[in-house]
Amino acid sequence: MLSARLIEFGSPLRLEEVPVPEPRGEEVLVRVEGAGVCHSVLHFVEGRFGRISVRDLGLRTPVTPGHEIGGRIARVGDRVKGFREGDKVVVDPWEGDLTCHYCRIGEEHLCDNPVKLGETVDGGFAEYVLVPNYRYLFRLDKLEPREASPLPCAGITPYRAVVKRAQVRPGETVAMLGAGGGLGTMAVQVAKVAGATVIGVDVREDALLEAERVGADYVVDATKDGVEEVRRIGEGRGVNVVLDTVGSNSTLKFVDALDKMGRYVVIGLYGGDINYHAPYVTQREVQILGSVVGNLDDFLGIMRLAEAGKVKPVVTRLMKLEEANQALDNLRYSKVTARQVLVP
Amino acid sequence: MLSARLIEFGSPLRLEEVPVPEPRGEEVLVRVEGAGVCHSVLHFVEGRFGRISVRDLGLRTPVTPGHEIGGRIARVGDRVKGFREGDKVVVDPWEGDLTCHYCRIGEEHLCDNPVKLGETVDGGFAEYVLVPNYRYLFRLDKLEPREASPLPCAGITPYRAVVKRAQVRPGETVAMLGAGGGLGTMAVQVAKVAGATVIGVDVREDALLEAERVGADYVVDATKDGVEEVRRIGEGRGVNVVLDTVGSNSTLKFVDALDKMGRYVVIGLYGGDINYHAPYVTQREVQILGSVVGNLDDFLGIMRLAEAGKVKPVVTRLMKLEEANQALDNLRYSKVTARQVLVP
Amino acid sequence: MLSARLIEFGSPLRLEEVPVPEPRGEEVLVRVEGAGVCHSVLHFVEGRFGRISVRDLGLRTPVTPGHEIGGRIARVGDRVKGFREGDKVVVDPWEGDLTCHYCRIGEEHLCDNPVKLGETVDGGFAEYVLVPNYRYLFRLDKLEPREASPLPCAGITPYRAVVKRAQVRPGETVAMLGAGGGLGTMAVQVAKVAGATVIGVDVREDALLEAERVGADYVVDATKDGVEEVRRIGEGRGVNVVLDTVGSNSTLKFVDALDKMGRYVVIGLYGGDINYHAPYVTQREVQILGSVVGNLDDFLGIMRLAEAGKVKPVVTRLMKLEEANQALDNLRYSKVTARQVLVP
Amino acid sequence: MLSARLIEFGSPLRLEEVPVPEPRGEEVLVRVEGAGVCHSVLHFVEGRFGRISVRDLGLRTPVTPGHEIGGRIARVGDRVKGFREGDKVVVDPWEGDLTCHYCRIGEEHLCDNPVKLGETVDGGFAEYVLVPNYRYLFRLDKLEPREASPLPCAGITPYRAVVKRAQVRPGETVAMLGAGGGLGTMAVQVAKVAGATVIGVDVREDALLEAERVGADYVVDATKDGVEEVRRIGEGRGVNVVLDTVGSNSTLKFVDALDKMGRYVVIGLYGGDINYHAPYVTQREVQILGSVVGNLDDFLGIMRLAEAGKVKPVVTRLMKLEEANQALDNLRYSKVTARQVLVP
Repeated sequence: MLSARLIEFGSPLRLEEVPVPEPRGEEVLVRVEGAGVCHSVLHFVEGRFGRISVRDLGLRTPVTPGHEIGGRIARVGDRVKGFREGDKVVVDPWEGDLTCHYCRIGEEHLCDNPVKLGETVDGGFAEYVLVPNYRYLFRLDKLEPREASPLPCAGITPYRAVVKRAQVRPGETVAMLGAGGGLGTMAVQVAKVAGATVIGVDVREDALLEAERVGADYVVDATKDGVEEVRRIGEGRGVNVVLDTVGSNSTLKFVDALDKMGRYVVIGLYGGDINYHAPYVTQREVQILGSVVGNLDDFLGIMRLAEAGKVKPVVTRLMKLEEANQALDNLRYSKVTARQVLVP
Repeated sequence: MLSARLIEFGSPLRLEEVPVPEPRGEEVLVRVEGAGVCHSVLHFVEGRFGRISVRDLGLRTPVTPGHEIGGRIARVGDRVKGFREGDKVVVDPWEGDLTCHYCRIGEEHLCDNPVKLGETVDGGFAEYVLVPNYRYLFRLDKLEPREASPLPCAGITPYRAVVKRAQVRPGETVAMLGAGGGLGTMAVQVAKVAGATVIGVDVREDALLEAERVGADYVVDATKDGVEEVRRIGEGRGVNVVLDTVGSNSTLKFVDALDKMGRYVVIGLYGGDINYHAPYVTQREVQILGSVVGNLDDFLGIMRLAEAGKVKPVVTRLMKLEEANQALDNLRYSKVTARQVLVP
Repeated sequence: MLSARLIEFGSPLRLEEVPVPEPRGEEVLVRVEGAGVCHSVLHFVEGRFGRISVRDLGLRTPVTPGHEIGGRIARVGDRVKGFREGDKVVVDPWEGDLTCHYCRIGEEHLCDNPVKLGETVDGGFAEYVLVPNYRYLFRLDKLEPREASPLPCAGITPYRAVVKRAQVRPGETVAMLGAGGGLGTMAVQVAKVAGATVIGVDVREDALLEAERVGADYVVDATKDGVEEVRRIGEGRGVNVVLDTVGSNSTLKFVDALDKMGRYVVIGLYGGDINYHAPYVTQREVQILGSVVGNLDDFLGIMRLAEAGKVKPVVTRLMKLEEANQALDNLRYSKVTARQVLVP
Repeated sequence: MLSARLIEFGSPLRLEEVPVPEPRGEEVLVRVEGAGVCHSVLHFVEGRFGRISVRDLGLRTPVTPGHEIGGRIARVGDRVKGFREGDKVVVDPWEGDLTCHYCRIGEEHLCDNPVKLGETVDGGFAEYVLVPNYRYLFRLDKLEPREASPLPCAGITPYRAVVKRAQVRPGETVAMLGAGGGLGTMAVQVAKVAGATVIGVDVREDALLEAERVGADYVVDATKDGVEEVRRIGEGRGVNVVLDTVGSNSTLKFVDALDKMGRYVVIGLYGGDINYHAPYVTQREVQILGSVVGNLDDFLGIMRLAEAGKVKPVVTRLMKLEEANQALDNLRYSKVTARQVLVP
């Protein structure tokens, strides 16, 4: 099968023919119909997450990237139940070893020895992908695998951040930083589904338009005294929640846009620093908290919303698997909004 | 009546004879039997909370300080129900206007126009204090007013932080920073009542002994690689909760002692800065949050625990009202542990 | 002023001229522009809530009924802040004494000595109503008092039930019993705002149509094996939440429609009996819980949703104050859907 | 190895020699040092859980009962990590298939196709037991396997009920029904750890003494107007939580002992009926909810408390494996309090 492989960190992907894997036991072989090109794939391929080297994380080449995967089941292992050949599926790529402390308390996305499709094992930039356990599959009913493919990363992350971490309540105000981006466009939708009034914050006009298109009630240009504007929309008191899909030094200033008892959730990994006078945090009882991808319950949660049509994946461009390096370049040079999806 | 008055910020208190107030409507006059000398009284008298001037907060002299008050009801206004002369009471000093946004959502300690006994109106460093509304009284059954007097501040603060904000669960590990101090000794007790395993962290031997005496399961000397030691006790993963009763640049380093999904609650107002790399917060899903005194439900909560004997106020020294300035000097020059209580 | 007064329980209301009250202190006089005719007014006028006599509840005549009130401020007491003559307002009629245990823990709708407009003091079936404290007013911005008038009862109740009690999460399935009724049509909307997939259940075709009109994703005719049908829509497992706006022996059978860990919230006061084999409740970990009107935070919550246009009050008929008895008869003989509003 | 086998439902266990199983893959072979004799083993052996036949649940003989297991690891499969021969362990017997809906949302104790040691596969009434996956083992540090053996059932159940379902807060009052029994003595301890004031309710003097011995603050004889007495201790308002470890028609009357917003958690499977007037549930906002054993997080939770010495298993009698039928007879004829443990 054709596969876009990372042979060495820092080099372009190389198209290679590799054998199609054979599923055994609980494993499932999926014929990939779409593989989303997440921004973090670019970091992985380049070998660095901010200040952290991927080698220090124990990651090794060669490997096939791609962790946003939709497709159809090609073959199932002999202990697989409830799934069969031809089923349309998406794959939760954040798989735990099921036996570490975090897996046992139900937070397998924080697993000490995780299996991450596209990082620790071969992922979706290929004609087929081997899924270690059918536990991580979601069978699609109404959605098609290609359009649904970004959800296991671009959808699960805002789902957990909004529903589990910020616990947004109907009627609350949420400022969405980076609202026009890949995470942001999904996050706006999830916050709207949760009943929030959403203020889309971004720095470019097309991004603000995109935020509006996916449902933001207000948009604020962050280049023009954004914090003050967000506070004003929040009835002068500030907003209940800021969801920061960027995480840069510029965005992290929006802690000042929080109402008393407000929550600031950082999901973006841009690499900024949180820098705050502690008495302000205490006196106003604000919270600053992190959220990263999600557990299996969060995966089912976002898929349930997507299948019910409550949120819609935003795929802006379909490209051939052979164009994988081009897709990465598009990200590298900011030539893309929302999600590109590779079609093997 | 005799009263220790603050005539001018930055000057010592002056003993004065002032008229005994007359309670009207919902007001209640309390004969003070004990008035705790909270560390924040010192800041108030000196006119500065860290970088913030009390004048900028709209506070004015002359006024009688003292917000930790226990006593006996002397007279009640004509609309007071359920309380009568002679009742032993403590007073919740964090009173709202009942009509601002925060009061209406039940968080009156965050009131926009608060009444604070000892700051915006006359407090407990006097023979009598006028309580604006009997809503803020708790009638003591088993406890005596003098011993109970510190609870409305030194007790309510850790109660809210542990029970409402960190939501500590039985079996969780909590590192208590400043465990031997006035807030710390109460906080250790509240965390123990909530079922936590408590690690008392402090910098002096006597403080560590005090932490152990009130129930800490472990003690850690913060001057000797405390973060590592706390992580180690937390089964190598770190602790579920850090409760920081100090809030200095030194203590705020203990964010590193948190387990994944851990919560860091800052209640101390020492004036340090939170300074953190955002990706770390995201990837480990930690939380940093503030908590300040408490609402009326929290006041009832801590009083219920104290009346049931589950936590014990720590009064280390009784002094005469005439010694108010001496008590403040003791705080100023760190000559005191836990609480001094003035007896008018 | 003209007023529709209840002189004796069990008799029709009598139109009377009474003096316009004068607001003092925190009181506010409101010129009534709309007064919703809640079904419970009928019970009150007839003197019985199910098996309970209103006299046993300490209620007395003569009194002016009406607890769903919208209008404009006519005059304010001398201690009122932040409201002024001419402000458009709705009134929270579930007012506590602020000093009982439940008021002090923030649940004043459960107050031991409540002030209930239209029951313990004169309510909204009159040209003017005296509101005891401006704390209970919400100033309307976009909404008009007449259309908003039903919200303090027909809106607050589903808000609390959905958001606070069932704590409905985005993507959950909710079966709404009595979906076409006064509470039901609001409850469908609130559950939709919270991100739920809503199954409207009712017994008449027009009610099912009404449920669909306000947003139900599915409708089920309860007269035709409704429990099975609801379970089927809930992916065979059953639904996460049943919200019972009726509370009759027939509706209470829908406990069987719950998924494991499902919540059954009873807000209807029809007077049925809960009758369930305990092992079933244990083994499936279901919950059965009650919810009644709401506290002040819930009032602000529903008003925030309504002002943002997320839920819309359903007023089906405007009638003159002089037609109050006719309006009650319409309820008595089931000649009305959603809400009638009296216009004094 | 020697094994006490159930050959036919309704017959006594038969001692048999069977081959020692060989662990493969993730499996672990445990040398049993103690096997608690839970009351539900008696029901299983007799073939009926209340009105439900075990055959209707798909359960089959021959099988070795026993789901409360402590022992030492004898051999591990080739994919087992982190455990080794000789480790002292207890076993979580409520194991899911990891792939059904409930397993995927983290509630594997509600699994649609559960593996239950002692019911669907051979359990602990034998010299050795084969554990399907090391995921379900907890390594003991301070505790001995024999004393810890009852915890996976008698401990996990009250842990989940108190901490996760009732979410008991420090200072709340909890009435424990059946406080002197096997579940009750553990439940009293867990509620105390959570900071509650506990009222032990039971019907026999020895049971009340036992409740007091494990920490109940008050005891109430249920044969003498218990509901009134519990309400009285609850400051006249009633208690915040009732935990019913019995579930009979007699105990279920204690819904009347709840304060407003109180929670009634049924964990006992005696087979009574919940029979309640719905308006009472609504008006007082009470909750009635079920809780059954617990998930893996609950298992770790109770073990953490036990290892920290915060709760102590109550083993009243050690018996030989050969006396298994005698132990069951002791339960059948109420000749035992707390737990008997078989020692193979």
